[in-house]
Amino acid sequence: MPRPSEFELIERFTRQFTRGEGVRVGVGDDAAVLRPPRGEELVATVDAVVEGVHFDRRFTPQEIGWKALAVNLSDLAAMGARPLWALVALATPPAADPARLERIGRGIAACARRHGVSVVGGNVTAARELSLTVTVLGAVERGRALLRSGGRPGDLLVVSGTLGDAALGIRPGAAPALRARQRRPRPRLALGRGAVGVARAAIDLSDGLLQDLGHLCTASGVGARVEVDRLPLSPAYRAATRRSRDPDLGALSGGEDYELLLAVPPSRLAALREAAHRARTPVTVVGALEARRGVRVVGGGRLLHPRHAGHDHLRPGRVLGPGPGRA
Amino acid sequence: MPRPSEFELIERFTRQFTRGEGVRVGVGDDAAVLRPPRGEELVATVDAVVEGVHFDRRFTPQEIGWKALAVNLSDLAAMGARPLWALVALATPPAADPARLERIGRGIAACARRHGVSVVGGNVTAARELSLTVTVLGAVERGRALLRSGGRPGDLLVVSGTLGDAALGIRPGAAPALRARQRRPRPRLALGRGAVGVARAAIDLSDGLLQDLGHLCTASGVGARVEVDRLPLSPAYRAATRRSRDPDLGALSGGEDYELLLAVPPSRLAALREAAHRARTPVTVVGALEARRGVRVVGGGRLLHPRHAGHDHLRPGRVLGPGPGRA
Repeated sequence: MPRPSEFELIERFTRQFTRGEGVRVGVGDDAAVLRPPRGEELVATVDAVVEGVHFDRRFTPQEIGWKALAVNLSDLAAMGARPLWALVALATPPAADPARLERIGRGIAACARRHGVSVVGGNVTAARELSLTVTVLGAVERGRALLRSGGRPGDLLVVSGTLGDAALGIRPGAAPALRARQRRPRPRLALGRGAVGVARAAIDLSDGLLQDLGHLCTASGVGARVEVDRLPLSPAYRAATRRSRDPDLGALSGGEDYELLLAVPPSRLAALREAAHRARTPVTVVGALEARRGVRVVGGGRLLHPRHAGHDHLRPGRVLGPGPGRA
Repeated sequence: MPRPSEFELIERFTRQFTRGEGVRVGVGDDAAVLRPPRGEELVATVDAVVEGVHFDRRFTPQEIGWKALAVNLSDLAAMGARPLWALVALATPPAADPARLERIGRGIAACARRHGVSVVGGNVTAARELSLTVTVLGAVERGRALLRSGGRPGDLLVVSGTLGDAALGIRPGAAPALRARQRRPRPRLALGRGAVGVARAAIDLSDGLLQDLGHLCTASGVGARVEVDRLPLSPAYRAATRRSRDPDLGALSGGEDYELLLAVPPSRLAALREAAHRARTPVTVVGALEARRGVRVVGGGRLLHPRHAGHDHLRPGRVLGPGPGRA
């Protein structure tokens, strides 16, 4: 069988995508034509996953596709937006197995269906390594998007789910629960929607709690205090770090959890808990914003000074292990 | 000086971008927040440029950035849309020179300013080779986007500018005029806007006239006839192909011209010429759509059967020369 041409590949890669809300022209013309929802603002973000950096050969093709879209949806969740549309750019070595590319497309389609996203644009190009760059567009009520900059001293810091699992999930022989967190992240879209009008600021945890909290603090012009004894840890995380010299490290600085970090005034904590209940998403208070700049980590009654604050996406071999530890 | 971190790089790469129409939150949060223009539809497209495929070391960093955005704007031009916003994902080897990346950002910013685009989102990730994946969003009056599918038998085929220059511009020692077409494509946005309500179908010429005409014909359910003697050729093209055995080949199948191909009913040709005049863009009738399927090339009174219909983006070494010739 002759190798498929670029156009056949695009066809195979995109034909699994369906149309949904507001799509007048989807994949197949020079550009998509979309009807923005009335009275709402658009939310737009782009993110890439690269072989050897964000995934490796242990990922199934479906997992690669799922993750490429899910990490973008996590950004929309952090804005309180509902997702609408996605555009997917695939870069692939020309010798790649077309069936593998089709299965990657299937993974994207599965994540898109799960979250009500229409894939409306695609592009395929040759490259030395496999990567997927996804742009997602969503909508949020006018003026209501959750920003990083809205935090105030005294706001409680609330995280969803459990922390540190994804970074452990890249280790050889990792427990299935940890592996799933690494390969099949679940964007916290329902919680993000529910936090609109409740939380004052939000960010998604892609680079580790400390680093992303640092971004939120910088944008809000505040500092923060994190209590390590309150960090939500999964049973699988506890089991995997039982003999670790520093079991909190991964929860503080492990990347790719794709949980939400919310800054919530104490008076609205009950409302946030209610929203989390409706979203079926566990939430935990892990600290608070403070007027004094800098992020302080408190544990066992003493102040810890983390040396390393999270992941750097430019460090090669990111999927091969969590970052260097703190002093 | 220590190497800049990912965040410093993102900062350097994006700080040159300014905000414009409808941008409530630009680069720097989890996602951009945008106000879609009322009563219009959105037009969205994504495209990537990869080192060694779409550009090489002979490109200046500014030219790389310019081209990455310009090829996307060309897709908006083909829809008759005006550009609004862009999101730029940079993939770079970790060892890349930060000053080079900053200059690439400057090239994007220059193209963005020239065409009134706000860069509202950015992403930087590690990869083995340099690439830029750009998503652009634009707007067009509701229901008025130029599609590939609107062509009817009898419509005249009109192209903007001159053909084949960009493919010649990648040859070593190419004339400056040809090199500029390859490295600094000019998206035909003004012509595209002017063609709304005049042309019945449009596509931009990224893969060569014959291949892109084939896409338009397939989408419109028609065939076409192209007259080689009418192809608009630049003086530089004529000079470079003077001794060629087949001087029309590049104009028929050379990629990356980023001109527009429009299908225009004969009754509206005068209106199209008027719009082209206002857009200061030369246009040429090169053939017509026909009911009979397939693309026929006519020259010197005889029917030519092109073997190769254009570029395949998955063929490696695309920047190293035009495609194989026709029989």
